[in-house]
Amino acid sequence: MAQEIERKFLVKDDSWRAAADQGTAYRQGYLSTERGRVVRVRVKGTQGVLTIKGERQGISAPEFEYPIPLADAEKLFKLCLRPLIEKVRYEVPHAGLTWEIDVFSGENEGLVLAEVELDSEDQQVELPSWAGPEVSDDGRYSNASLVSSPYRNW
Amino acid sequence: MAQEIERKFLVKDDSWRAAADQGTAYRQGYLSTERGRVVRVRVKGTQGVLTIKGERQGISAPEFEYPIPLADAEKLFKLCLRPLIEKVRYEVPHAGLTWEIDVFSGENEGLVLAEVELDSEDQQVELPSWAGPEVSDDGRYSNASLVSSPYRNW
Repeated sequence: MAQEIERKFLVKDDSWRAAADQGTAYRQGYLSTERGRVVRVRVKGTQGVLTIKGERQGISAPEFEYPIPLADAEKLFKLCLRPLIEKVRYEVPHAGLTWEIDVFSGENEGLVLAEVELDSEDQQVELPSWAGPEVSDDGRYSNASLVSSPYRNW
Repeated sequence: MAQEIERKFLVKDDSWRAAADQGTAYRQGYLSTERGRVVRVRVKGTQGVLTIKGERQGISAPEFEYPIPLADAEKLFKLCLRPLIEKVRYEVPHAGLTWEIDVFSGENEGLVLAEVELDSEDQQVELPSWAGPEVSDDGRYSNASLVSSPYRNW
């Protein structure tokens, strides 16, 4: 088990792209979106992974990750709630941290989110110029919530 | 992914005990009991396992099983729906097949179920003398259902 400590921001403009990598396609679906026992199936590039997320306390949540065969992940997608979440994740280094920029497509087309994973809750973060309002505490922006309430319907 | 094909019976008496092994303690909890996307955490003896079960068609269901560290399973139990399922599983050979007899405790004390796993749906099964009425099609006897509706409350 790991503890995931994460802050999440909207993105003001496209200037992050200058420092971004080429991006990795993510597809993910949910077997449970219930708060405190979220179960996610993800394909990241060609790697399958099964993740369970416990109850979030502030910006921290317990997280359990298990690699699974790609073929299993594809079959598990058929069991998942609809829609699946599709996005390209870009990595952008800034001031010693790696930011992840998720550019959503499909039912969540138009949504772009920036996340940064931290070692501790009180870690100081130097915000990039392209970082918009923080949405760490806004549940609508959790990927699990984007299943039942996709961005297109907001 | 495997396909689980299974028939389930009530148990008439204790005569199966004569041919049973010493039994293995099972504890299991559910992150989702939703039909078609059941997610189970199990500790069998000292082995943790995470299982996802898809929609049952007749007596068959797709099943995905992943071994996980015992320490993870214990932590995942804290996220699971209550109550956890506790039982001792005994193996009983009969007419070329291995029957599994689950003797429940905790909230499901008093319930004893016999299961036999098959290679095909139309496989002939010679029923042991202690096998009672078949309950393969009675959803109340699924372990996932015994969480929301434990045997003690029937």
